[in-house]
Amino acid sequence: MDEIKDSAYFQDSPCTEIKSFFDTAPPLKDVIEINRKLEEFKKRNHSSSEHKRSRRVVCITSGGTTVPLEQRCVRYIDNFSSGHRGAASTEYFLKAGYSVIFLYRRGTCQPYCRSLPDDLLLECFDITDELNIGVNPGDAEAVKRAVSEHHSAVIKGNLLKLPFTTIFEYLQILQLIALSMRSLGSSAMFYLSAAVSDFYVPWEAMMVHKIQSHTGPLDMRLAQVPKMLLALRKDWAPLAFCISFKLETDTEILLEKADMALTKYNVHMVVANELLTRKEEVIVVSKSGNITVCRDKNQDGADV
Amino acid sequence: MDEIKDSAYFQDSPCTEIKSFFDTAPPLKDVIEINRKLEEFKKRNHSSSEHKRSRRVVCITSGGTTVPLEQRCVRYIDNFSSGHRGAASTEYFLKAGYSVIFLYRRGTCQPYCRSLPDDLLLECFDITDELNIGVNPGDAEAVKRAVSEHHSAVIKGNLLKLPFTTIFEYLQILQLIALSMRSLGSSAMFYLSAAVSDFYVPWEAMMVHKIQSHTGPLDMRLAQVPKMLLALRKDWAPLAFCISFKLETDTEILLEKADMALTKYNVHMVVANELLTRKEEVIVVSKSGNITVCRDKNQDGADV
Repeated sequence: MDEIKDSAYFQDSPCTEIKSFFDTAPPLKDVIEINRKLEEFKKRNHSSSEHKRSRRVVCITSGGTTVPLEQRCVRYIDNFSSGHRGAASTEYFLKAGYSVIFLYRRGTCQPYCRSLPDDLLLECFDITDELNIGVNPGDAEAVKRAVSEHHSAVIKGNLLKLPFTTIFEYLQILQLIALSMRSLGSSAMFYLSAAVSDFYVPWEAMMVHKIQSHTGPLDMRLAQVPKMLLALRKDWAPLAFCISFKLETDTEILLEKADMALTKYNVHMVVANELLTRKEEVIVVSKSGNITVCRDKNQDGADV
Repeated sequence: MDEIKDSAYFQDSPCTEIKSFFDTAPPLKDVIEINRKLEEFKKRNHSSSEHKRSRRVVCITSGGTTVPLEQRCVRYIDNFSSGHRGAASTEYFLKAGYSVIFLYRRGTCQPYCRSLPDDLLLECFDITDELNIGVNPGDAEAVKRAVSEHHSAVIKGNLLKLPFTTIFEYLQILQLIALSMRSLGSSAMFYLSAAVSDFYVPWEAMMVHKIQSHTGPLDMRLAQVPKMLLALRKDWAPLAFCISFKLETDTEILLEKADMALTKYNVHMVVANELLTRKEEVIVVSKSGNITVCRDKNQDGADV
């Protein structure tokens, strides 16, 4: 078990794996634009001057990453993740006075939209007359609150939303965010609730065209995604407070896996949950012990 | 090439494969409710009486199917498919006087919502005062049209929407729909624009719990999904007009694959498209020849 207890980031091969992952990944579009937004966000929300009030900044990741199976992507592996927790947590952190960088999977749950039906337009609204649209009375309060609170956060510049889809985009953007937040030292926090793929197909090993289906069973070999937490904790933003998440389907191994994550990656907290009960209960694992948090609103308002 | 030319449905093994697929698939929830909706829909929209006017009925399938990789599903394989084509086609078929059964992937594009932004609530609306929500003027027309046309179709009972997520649900519900439409004979049509998985993990062969990631590369063997078109054309609704779709990423094999599909499954039409140009051009392949259809509004209003 020594292998597990040793902090993996003092060994060479994880760093090599991480470097190799980034070297061979397809290049991220909009790098310049993303960095510009991060710079602007940092200026608005954090000041090193003694006279200006700084807000603590948390990067919240949300939703699942995809693993393309073909370069001209038709099929991909996905992770089940609605993004509800990340979206809910964003609302709570904003209320608690943090500024939030919300790194989310395109199409998943947005902050302030949780209580609205999926088929929003078609369920909440009605034509009142030729000129107007009315909100159904039962939904009116929820809709108004969603719109106004979202506008408020965006206008004040406290909420920066950055979307991703693939595992490549996710890790590349996370790295940009972390490098940008590095200068915030211990005022920075990472709340990594995204469901990140454990396995992937390296870009160069990927078929270019859609895999054909008339030739019998399909055999696939997937490589392990390098554990980026190591790079985050050691290189990218070593002073930031880090909360990672662990989801398992087998309660018997859940706590063991959470403990392993705490030790191996040297994060400050691991929020452990089981698939079927995750909306009712999570266990927050840290070096000082475990806390079981039960519903309602399953939220850990972490203090730095 | 005789193998390809022979209609595959006269051979035993595809039928055995199909039967085996359904026998081993996890049971569909809400079978009774789905059948009740189909019966009600059929009564409202199709009458065998000479005195009542019947509408032709088309089943439009839309969006991609998922292939769960674990029984307690955390990861799954998905197909890239926004559902735009299926949603757009539904609008056109309704306008042309058909009744539509819309079998769609949860979360994908809905009829009448195509021109609206993804982040609808947060982009289109604004708080006008404490009591009201206004639609931004630029979006008002589109929003009103979406709401009113959708309401109209639903209220008249001409549009039945049935959602799916997994390959299992999709094929099970498609079978129910086809068996229900069987009695409509040649007044029934199938417009199969859904992106259906070619490969899957049979339920009994599936890991129960989330696959663990610390043990090195992951090897997966996926079985071929039996071609249900064979069963649809031969058994479920043999008199219905069938349009299937073929998406490839390699233009060189596109027409060849479309021809193969036409012959092998004995469908009436195949709409062939290439991934990168699918919004600009499709080729409609039938026994009487090929027609290239270019944008705008990439719609084939098929006549029975």
